Amino acid sequence: MSKLRLTISMSLDGYVAGPNQSEENPIGEGGLAVHEWFFPLKEFKEMHGDAGGVVNESSPIVIERRENVGATIMGRNMFGPIRGSWGDESWRGWWGEDPPYHHPVFVLTHHARAPLEMDGGTTFHFVTDGIESALAHAKAAADGQDIWLAGGAETVNQYLAAGLVDEIDVSIAPVILGAGERLFAGLNPNSLKLEQTRAVQAPGVTHIKYKLG
Amino acid sequence: MSKLRLTISMSLDGYVAGPNQSEENPIGEGGLAVHEWFFPLKEFKEMHGDAGGVVNESSPIVIERRENVGATIMGRNMFGPIRGSWGDESWRGWWGEDPPYHHPVFVLTHHARAPLEMDGGTTFHFVTDGIESALAHAKAAADGQDIWLAGGAETVNQYLAAGLVDEIDVSIAPVILGAGERLFAGLNPNSLKLEQTRAVQAPGVTHIKYKLG
Repeated sequence: MSKLRLTISMSLDGYVAGPNQSEENPIGEGGLAVHEWFFPLKEFKEMHGDAGGVVNESSPIVIERRENVGATIMGRNMFGPIRGSWGDESWRGWWGEDPPYHHPVFVLTHHARAPLEMDGGTTFHFVTDGIESALAHAKAAADGQDIWLAGGAETVNQYLAAGLVDEIDVSIAPVILGAGERLFAGLNPNSLKLEQTRAVQAPGVTHIKYKLG
Repeated sequence: MSKLRLTISMSLDGYVAGPNQSEENPIGEGGLAVHEWFFPLKEFKEMHGDAGGVVNESSPIVIERRENVGATIMGRNMFGPIRGSWGDESWRGWWGEDPPYHHPVFVLTHHARAPLEMDGGTTFHFVTDGIESALAHAKAAADGQDIWLAGGAETVNQYLAAGLVDEIDVSIAPVILGAGERLFAGLNPNSLKLEQTRAVQAPGVTHIKYKLG
């Protein structure tokens, strides 16, 4: 059975991005600090075609998170800084012509757009009819593999509120952002049942995994 | 040097107590779930004069947290359910005549009250002139030992905002409360510098410790 797996980094105060996201600040002001544990890793360098990097306790976590994933779901604010209509459609994502997904990516948006085929197996599909539809499309595309729920907070919180998430794997960074996009906001008390299945201490981060019942 | 150590349990969505705290629900609706990892422990049973209980990965954490602590600071909402004036002063805390502190406890309040000497070495002192004053009194009383900053969220957030906390040791429970008293709320971006010094996986909880710079 194909699972919907939330994999995300957040600050200790629960933010996955800082305030005022823009083309200059894709993760909002100060938001990059939430991902700082990731950048020195060999796996991160490889993803971007670079050599070098370190191997530490985060490495097996990062590898595990990419295993058996056949499709990704994200919100349109994670895909780009453009709000409202797509304009001339020149925006093709943050990741260049060969994005690090290598599988179909379903972008939730209110604005229709034709699929965008990139190099390396990544195609961005724009879904305008809601989170259930995006999940159905992603499951069909993943062909039995799991779906990565990538962000941002608003999209993730919608999936959590709907009870559609099977697994949460959250990396808690030693950072207080103070403002921005807050994960787990607006959920109903007792609407989710979590079982902690793993916690790993790594340099500058703690990775905790939960199964949702 | 006497350190101010925040030791607290919170839900994955950042709440240390549920909504609507009352005498029937000291930790708010659903809030007890945040402490569920603690109740089966031998250390918890001993604290309450009971035999039995289990020893697991949380045990050394709980023991460490009580070591070298000479005084405690808490908000008046943690001391009791009474809001406003103290009335007939019959409220003597949640913990019976022999509270599990065994040292001076400084309770932040807007309403003056004479010190309350309990059995077993615990005396509750009521401080009406602010967080710096409570900390100064606690340091004097602790005589070189550390101060435990116990809660609740509002009190802790004031100490964090003032940059007075030296260490955060937070137990993250696999619970989504959805509402209540939120830790780390209202802090300014970049106002705190955290270094993760330890993360421990234990049954039903993850304990993460930070040093504040």
